[in-house]
Amino acid sequence: MNSRTSKLASRLDKMALVCLLVTRMENIRYLTGFSGSSAFLVVAPSKAVLVTDGRYSEQAAAECPGLDISIYTGDLVGTISDLLPGGTTGFESTLSFDFYSRLSEGLPEHSLLKPVEGAVEELRTFKEPGEIELIRRAVCFAEEGFNQVLPLIKAGISERKLAAELDYRMVLAGADAPAFETIVASGPNSSKPHAGITDRVVQEGDLVVVDFGAEAGGYRSDTTRTIKVPPTSNRENEAYLAVDQAVKRALESIRPGVEASSVDKAARNYLQEKGYGENFTHSLGHGVGLEAHERPNLSPRSVETLEPGTVFTIEPGVYIPGSFGVRIEEMVLLTESGHELLTGGIPHQNDER
Amino acid sequence: MNSRTSKLASRLDKMALVCLLVTRMENIRYLTGFSGSSAFLVVAPSKAVLVTDGRYSEQAAAECPGLDISIYTGDLVGTISDLLPGGTTGFESTLSFDFYSRLSEGLPEHSLLKPVEGAVEELRTFKEPGEIELIRRAVCFAEEGFNQVLPLIKAGISERKLAAELDYRMVLAGADAPAFETIVASGPNSSKPHAGITDRVVQEGDLVVVDFGAEAGGYRSDTTRTIKVPPTSNRENEAYLAVDQAVKRALESIRPGVEASSVDKAARNYLQEKGYGENFTHSLGHGVGLEAHERPNLSPRSVETLEPGTVFTIEPGVYIPGSFGVRIEEMVLLTESGHELLTGGIPHQNDER
Repeated sequence: MNSRTSKLASRLDKMALVCLLVTRMENIRYLTGFSGSSAFLVVAPSKAVLVTDGRYSEQAAAECPGLDISIYTGDLVGTISDLLPGGTTGFESTLSFDFYSRLSEGLPEHSLLKPVEGAVEELRTFKEPGEIELIRRAVCFAEEGFNQVLPLIKAGISERKLAAELDYRMVLAGADAPAFETIVASGPNSSKPHAGITDRVVQEGDLVVVDFGAEAGGYRSDTTRTIKVPPTSNRENEAYLAVDQAVKRALESIRPGVEASSVDKAARNYLQEKGYGENFTHSLGHGVGLEAHERPNLSPRSVETLEPGTVFTIEPGVYIPGSFGVRIEEMVLLTESGHELLTGGIPHQNDER
Repeated sequence: MNSRTSKLASRLDKMALVCLLVTRMENIRYLTGFSGSSAFLVVAPSKAVLVTDGRYSEQAAAECPGLDISIYTGDLVGTISDLLPGGTTGFESTLSFDFYSRLSEGLPEHSLLKPVEGAVEELRTFKEPGEIELIRRAVCFAEEGFNQVLPLIKAGISERKLAAELDYRMVLAGADAPAFETIVASGPNSSKPHAGITDRVVQEGDLVVVDFGAEAGGYRSDTTRTIKVPPTSNRENEAYLAVDQAVKRALESIRPGVEASSVDKAARNYLQEKGYGENFTHSLGHGVGLEAHERPNLSPRSVETLEPGTVFTIEPGVYIPGSFGVRIEEMVLLTESGHELLTGGIPHQNDER
């Protein structure tokens, strides 16, 4: 076993489980290092077994030193069942109903299945130095890509072309891939927080929202910049300043142990004061790591506190339906003494203009 | 209701269901046209209701004319439960255990849930003219991208750079996105059918396997070419010829109503004759449409027959562990009178050499 599976194993007792079947691929990657597309992991108090298929036998052996590896041929459910001891086995409740049913049917006598939520996700919330290093690399690749694309953001280029250029340059910089589908939303399209790419051509006077990230060793970055293509209107400039200031208010409120909801509130109250209460329509932020969206969640309804070792976004936005939108998104590492802005090197505007 | 939801509704009786809850996003896109990232669809004999959240209210109305749209705020499970009539409701068995449990608990009296497999996937197997048109567009974007990248496939370029160039050019050509993570596997890396991208630099004498596709309006293409970077060895050239010939044998065996397993056999037997029996380690092919891998499945264990209107790949390969690999993948449309090679325009070698 490795240190992460051992840590999980040491929590089984408290969950009243004899073992845990892990099926979410991000959780398996976190616990074992395995980066293939299909595997299952059984964690018991004194052993951890990775179950995968023949395509991945070499890769699993190389990526998962110290773990037992079981290669199945044909009977996956039987292979997993055979690894389960008597007693209550936990399974991740994101498992499909179909797989759960087949597993139930083939279960050995005196064995039970019990759904478990967030057991591995909770461990993943607190990043180790090696994980933070990979997140820094992801940010760095995104930064390099964006720096190259920034001079292209002007009237005449299409959203599609900008997104393609950014993805291309992040990968050439060293990213394994874009961290998610890059958003480039220009002019009126920017008023939709989840706009898809279109063939719209950037016009003078547009705001262009670019939401992008890179992937490095499985870890991701997530940043948004809103670029002004002059001449922008006073209304747009004011909204931009308000969002920029809302980011600062949120950052100022961050300290170890702070309630996530109060960080959301710091930004939300400011936007409300400025008259944008109805225009900030989503949560303030979310954790980032092996997934672009993970724990913690920063919203008005959050019940969690923010603790040292967590990495999360601060991303207030103002959206004026049919007209324009502004979003600025930074990534923050919470430390024992305060916080570090991870995305401070990613520029906000093109200085050439 | 539209024609696809009506067709599904007309099959409810035969499945002994009063309605069906559709939760797979590809199936929802197929049935409704909705292309957002989160929705649920309830199909009953005389109505179809799309349930989604506030982010998508405008988009759903625009994309799904003729369907009822219900926007939930907060209580998703309650919103869905309220739509279910008494009697047995089917649900897609890929649904998560967690969601199934919450739905079970909130179910109205006299209602039951029953898992259903492949009800929508079966409809999707047979492509309508509009779907075939989108697949042709996807192939066309992939073809344009690959034609531009082909001259770059020579000694000195890295796998990463080639993949980035190909993705970039497919999107510029008009693709919504690459259809899946592009594979560029050079030299010894080509011996792994599921190789990831590396920073390996292409060498003289390499085979370079490029497995790529584009997405257009949700539909995908999927093609593989193996490019020789001279001087390749006799052993490599022989394997290439054998795979190329195996494609032809498979194509020759295709006719309406043929067993999928016998098409697999046509290619597999040929490779066996040539001494590569142990080196063709995967299935011959798979359907392509809204997903890069869907029905039908062409493998030795397939029980299905291939019918007019299906679109699928033919992709034999020979993999010599630690040494090299060859794979050629074509897409085929099965018609009433025979078949059409959809990827015939994608070149196999660089004529400049």
